[in-house]
Amino acid sequence: MRLALGITYRGTDYHGWQSQPDGRTVQDHLESALSRFAAAPIRVVCAGRTDTGVHGLNQVVHLDTDRQRDLFSWVRGPNAHLPKDISVQWCRSVPDHFHARNLARGRRYAYILQESVVRPAMDFGRVGWTFRPLDEDRLKAAAAVLIGTHDFSAFRSADCQALSPVKELRRIDVTRHGSFWRFDFEASAFLHHMVRNLMGCLVMVGTGVRDVAWLEKVLVSRSRALAAPTFSADGLFFLTALYDAEFDLPRRTSAFDALPGGLTVIDP
Amino acid sequence: MRLALGITYRGTDYHGWQSQPDGRTVQDHLESALSRFAAAPIRVVCAGRTDTGVHGLNQVVHLDTDRQRDLFSWVRGPNAHLPKDISVQWCRSVPDHFHARNLARGRRYAYILQESVVRPAMDFGRVGWTFRPLDEDRLKAAAAVLIGTHDFSAFRSADCQALSPVKELRRIDVTRHGSFWRFDFEASAFLHHMVRNLMGCLVMVGTGVRDVAWLEKVLVSRSRALAAPTFSADGLFFLTALYDAEFDLPRRTSAFDALPGGLTVIDP
Repeated sequence: MRLALGITYRGTDYHGWQSQPDGRTVQDHLESALSRFAAAPIRVVCAGRTDTGVHGLNQVVHLDTDRQRDLFSWVRGPNAHLPKDISVQWCRSVPDHFHARNLARGRRYAYILQESVVRPAMDFGRVGWTFRPLDEDRLKAAAAVLIGTHDFSAFRSADCQALSPVKELRRIDVTRHGSFWRFDFEASAFLHHMVRNLMGCLVMVGTGVRDVAWLEKVLVSRSRALAAPTFSADGLFFLTALYDAEFDLPRRTSAFDALPGGLTVIDP
Repeated sequence: MRLALGITYRGTDYHGWQSQPDGRTVQDHLESALSRFAAAPIRVVCAGRTDTGVHGLNQVVHLDTDRQRDLFSWVRGPNAHLPKDISVQWCRSVPDHFHARNLARGRRYAYILQESVVRPAMDFGRVGWTFRPLDEDRLKAAAAVLIGTHDFSAFRSADCQALSPVKELRRIDVTRHGSFWRFDFEASAFLHHMVRNLMGCLVMVGTGVRDVAWLEKVLVSRSRALAAPTFSADGLFFLTALYDAEFDLPRRTSAFDALPGGLTVIDP
């Protein structure tokens, strides 16, 4: 029997999603809690592996089990064994051909950036920070350059394992909410560090350090060396993965209400 | 020379505001950072001491110094020595008779409560949690019982050092924002644990476990034993203290934008 689960986590205190020997990852904690609940070893496959410090609001995983339990007990049970900053939000039964990674038709991320003379404290770990003011028109012009199907090698980390650097970046929506800027990204898939590398360049253009022509040149160059440094992981949220309607999976959880800067402007 | 500073902090990882021998309090970190910046011992007096786990958005302190520095350097300088979850937000020069605690004409707190079948994870430490649904009419009726000048002994911890249990509770505003409930409290001053003890009772009534007549009886009884248990510190925010206009102190910082459940409905 194959199950899909929605997972929410605060990434600040973890070494990213993917299992590591030190065990301090979200996957390690999740598999341990699921295995304790099921009293059998459980492995999961996720929609989008996140880096150290990156948060997940509706990370989707699938797992296989022969345990017969009602679906909500797959939420409540593992949550009793998980740390306070990780929780299972929902569980659905899915056909055996469902695959959280291979069948995801897209992924959504949001980046929350606080523009403030003074560094944030209440929201440390949850927001990126700029003390330089951003210009909305410049940000939108920069975003327009990036949208589309491109070779994103200039925004790809050296560790990236993707087969191809060509991705379809479907949208970057930039919205302002008080002292927060919110960037909504959707793509077929993202390269390693891609959102953080894009953010570094968007902030460069938005603050006037670089212009839009520079960003065009960076994109075409396919050279990581020309792009801005990787931006902080702090304000980055994996929002959700997109699947065919036949699977009928939730695209949001109540954790979305907690996102700094207000609810998503993209219908989740 | 007397200075007033506005301080923002995430209380989750601290043993409250007030200095302790173990040094793991907000006051200890702040005084240490200020003293390093000033290269002289600095002590501060705050408007409202907060408990372990309680956050501060615009905590006001005063200090005395003979160091001549421009005011913004009292923000930037100490921030370089403070942990990431504490920051100085502003600094103003005040007359020598200003006193952060004694001259505060009121204090504002907000409590953020998430109503969700599943426990929160992204917002752990920042929100209280109830899986039982709350009823807005019941909450408002309960709040109405509490507003006014009363002997709040039923909501006072055994450790409370206040001279009198009689306080003027000016308002409790209850608003809903998505899965969040927000409770805004303003009083002349608060007793130790008072907001958390009020919250315990409000949730009892709001979820239907108790009725409004019970709450009236608890208030009149002045007996802590009759009231609900102290509610979690997680969702409690010290918003600001109120002073006479002559001091011209900021009543909010950009940290207010980050409050789960949206901006304050009380004009700060």
